[in-house]
Amino acid sequence: MNSIVILGAGNVAFHLTRALIQNTCNVRQIFNRTLERAKEIGEANRISYTDKISEIEKAELYIIASADSGIEEFSHYIPYDDVLVVHTSGSSPMSILKGDYRKGVLYPLQTFSKERSLRYDNIPFFIEAENPTDLKALSDLANRISNEVHELNFAARMQVQMTGVWANNFVNHLYYIAGNICEKNNIPADVLLPLIQETAKKVLELDPKTAQTGPAKRGDQIIIDKHLNALQDDSRLLQIYQLLTDSIKRVYENDKLQREIK
Amino acid sequence: MNSIVILGAGNVAFHLTRALIQNTCNVRQIFNRTLERAKEIGEANRISYTDKISEIEKAELYIIASADSGIEEFSHYIPYDDVLVVHTSGSSPMSILKGDYRKGVLYPLQTFSKERSLRYDNIPFFIEAENPTDLKALSDLANRISNEVHELNFAARMQVQMTGVWANNFVNHLYYIAGNICEKNNIPADVLLPLIQETAKKVLELDPKTAQTGPAKRGDQIIIDKHLNALQDDSRLLQIYQLLTDSIKRVYENDKLQREIK
Repeated sequence: MNSIVILGAGNVAFHLTRALIQNTCNVRQIFNRTLERAKEIGEANRISYTDKISEIEKAELYIIASADSGIEEFSHYIPYDDVLVVHTSGSSPMSILKGDYRKGVLYPLQTFSKERSLRYDNIPFFIEAENPTDLKALSDLANRISNEVHELNFAARMQVQMTGVWANNFVNHLYYIAGNICEKNNIPADVLLPLIQETAKKVLELDPKTAQTGPAKRGDQIIIDKHLNALQDDSRLLQIYQLLTDSIKRVYENDKLQREIK
Repeated sequence: MNSIVILGAGNVAFHLTRALIQNTCNVRQIFNRTLERAKEIGEANRISYTDKISEIEKAELYIIASADSGIEEFSHYIPYDDVLVVHTSGSSPMSILKGDYRKGVLYPLQTFSKERSLRYDNIPFFIEAENPTDLKALSDLANRISNEVHELNFAARMQVQMTGVWANNFVNHLYYIAGNICEKNNIPADVLLPLIQETAKKVLELDPKTAQTGPAKRGDQIIIDKHLNALQDDSRLLQIYQLLTDSIKRVYENDKLQREIK
């Protein structure tokens, strides 16, 4: 891909542009409906930027790095047939792209925010394309950024995107719940940070099933009951606690059952 | 505390002994009912070890670092009155210690496993004692290991211990669930590791409420419905997904309401 135009200027566009340019890919231009944000990314990466549809340059690859709700609209802005257009969404099919060009998907699984610098070389990219030539081209491009590139169809990509909800959105919400409980007891939520870091680091060495500890895994109903009792005033937390505890118990009960059968 | 004896030889005992000795505290002996495990910690730290109750040395401080279920039994083994005996549990009251000695608690909030080396200087210690002199002594001791020492009564300590369930046990279980979904789609669960690490690192800079992203926060019901649909075959995961999504929504809806009221 000798020339690339990025459409969109959110967090994914910000990091993807930087990742591509750091790996000497030829990003020519960034387009966004709000000039301010395109300018920010354009100037940071010394590439041209525009908010005018008529000024979108001809390129070999167009990457629509917008929110899901914006993909279809952006997809109409590209007036060429002999180009490849991809979006970066885990939850939209390739067919959301409405144009006569060739289509594909380049989905990175990571949580992006402009404030945080990221390693790009281990971000998994999931790619899809209408034909093998474009798939190969996308694979080569993604491999310039990252060591973790997988071809994946839409149904499986949706599932992978959902794992992001479990491993990021929900995990972060559990941090929030735990922090709230600390603060209600006049303990700063920051006391949790070493535990949070260690929990994440542990699974770099042990798979989560092996790394699991705690009363649910041990089947320690006395402690579980104490915790349930402590949550009496918050039926929502009580339900979440109960469900996650049952879910953990089930993993290890199944194991026990398997051992007994053998 | 010029002399310390550790009772128990599990993961907490392993790390606490090492942390104390690294910070030049005088740990004299480690006692455990199974000699093998006491020997392992004793030899690694060049201190004496025993499995004989009659050989437990006289010391100023005894730290019972056993599972909750063992604390009471261990507490009977100390035949002295003029000593301080503490346990390291978040979920047991000081009164579980049955002896005529002075009592206290030294509870570290962290997930301990022998396989993993840990920084000790940021592990929060929560302490309790019957009298101000012992509280001061425990505070001085904990401060030799860590910069994060808090006095805390039993009711609050139970709550803090429960935050460990949320921020560690449940978080690890979400990693497990996410990994399972990957593997069902023939994607190695390891693709999640960069996201897991980034999610944990992000809260070192942003509080979890600010760090939150995803469909629940945005109120993106289209994506939520796609995920719920993808979970149709697993009623347990479906329920957990729904509850955590509602819980996240509630945080940001409350915010919105607050802004509207103002």
